[in-house]
Amino acid sequence: MEMNFEDITVVGFDADDTLWVNETYFRETEEKFADLLEGFETKNKIDQELFRTEIKNLDLYGYGIKGFMLSMIESALELSNNGISQATLGRILNLGKEMISHPVELLEGVEEVLEKLQGKYRLIVLTKGDLLDQERKLERSGLTDYFHHVEVLSDKKEKNYQNLLDHLNIDVKNFIMIGNSLKSDVLPLVNIGARAIHVPFHTTWKHEMVEGPVEHKGYMTVSALPEILKYLK
Amino acid sequence: MEMNFEDITVVGFDADDTLWVNETYFRETEEKFADLLEGFETKNKIDQELFRTEIKNLDLYGYGIKGFMLSMIESALELSNNGISQATLGRILNLGKEMISHPVELLEGVEEVLEKLQGKYRLIVLTKGDLLDQERKLERSGLTDYFHHVEVLSDKKEKNYQNLLDHLNIDVKNFIMIGNSLKSDVLPLVNIGARAIHVPFHTTWKHEMVEGPVEHKGYMTVSALPEILKYLK
Repeated sequence: MEMNFEDITVVGFDADDTLWVNETYFRETEEKFADLLEGFETKNKIDQELFRTEIKNLDLYGYGIKGFMLSMIESALELSNNGISQATLGRILNLGKEMISHPVELLEGVEEVLEKLQGKYRLIVLTKGDLLDQERKLERSGLTDYFHHVEVLSDKKEKNYQNLLDHLNIDVKNFIMIGNSLKSDVLPLVNIGARAIHVPFHTTWKHEMVEGPVEHKGYMTVSALPEILKYLK
Repeated sequence: MEMNFEDITVVGFDADDTLWVNETYFRETEEKFADLLEGFETKNKIDQELFRTEIKNLDLYGYGIKGFMLSMIESALELSNNGISQATLGRILNLGKEMISHPVELLEGVEEVLEKLQGKYRLIVLTKGDLLDQERKLERSGLTDYFHHVEVLSDKKEKNYQNLLDHLNIDVKNFIMIGNSLKSDVLPLVNIGARAIHVPFHTTWKHEMVEGPVEHKGYMTVSALPEILKYLK
């Protein structure tokens, strides 16, 4: 399939694991969480239970570190049958605070790509999760000036994207989304008639995984962000 | 001072305690929190300590129920010197979940006001706090169709408003903000040259209070939302 990029005027970038490392810190925190609870259950069971709690709470808390922290507290109480010590619960709160305060680690080639695209396209950041958290990361990243603005969506479903494009007066045909998640950054866009480039990150949260190979008109996969410069010039 | 409203084209509404009840539920939850901790400290000390913890965490967590929940857990551990029971911590989590799930209670006259203003002005919701939470409340409120869209700001300082007006291409002279908080909904707007109408709510969070009488050009105070219809026609 030949994709044509001539009519693109607006480029949306996912942020977490597209511009900077994110999922890795969740994995590391899950490891530490499992270590704190190892007297009560197997590592595997702890992992499963935390994931189950996160998914159960997703409608209530949405995406982001604060909801993750609350789910860690909840599943620590459940996994231990209320046997976990109060001091350990305090340590779990601190694990979350450390995540929030973590320095931003840009992925390779990000600045080079933004440098080349700025002025030619309107660049926006399109992320889900916590607004304050995402604004803070953008500020710490030093990338603020490349972007027209940041949009934080409560979810990244077709309806969220469609509402956003409507409100920004952007025609789907002029829009392309760049991101690491097929489920959140690619397929919903393709389904509403926009385009997308998939840039996989080495770690994907289970909830973001799409089973089996996904072939779809309207998007392509590249192996690293700088490759998008072949198409967007 | 005579305020002129002829050039207003866009009306921004704060949501919590302007369109619907909010602060009241925080007060009620604080009461229940103090009841759960009453073996450890006086009610007054518990109130103070929770507030201190919230303010300490505000930069980290921002506004909203999830941050409030995390601060309740943290101050319960501190106030009790880790003596609070695990079961009580579970109950504190549930207090927060109940807040998130609480039905939306519209303030008096809200629908009548929106009904009259729709079509004459572009109406937007401008709130701070948690994006998912605010979207959910708007949906539950049944008011969605009155509004062009919702903007959730990480904070409501001059800079946040200025960025927003820039990004929406709204001239400050065409914009008026309606809200219950002098600090968040009124003064920052006046300071950037926009206008505001202050509609006080009976309960104000300590952090939102402004000391002493505040007189300022560019805004007026009304005693209930329907009074804005005298000015915006």
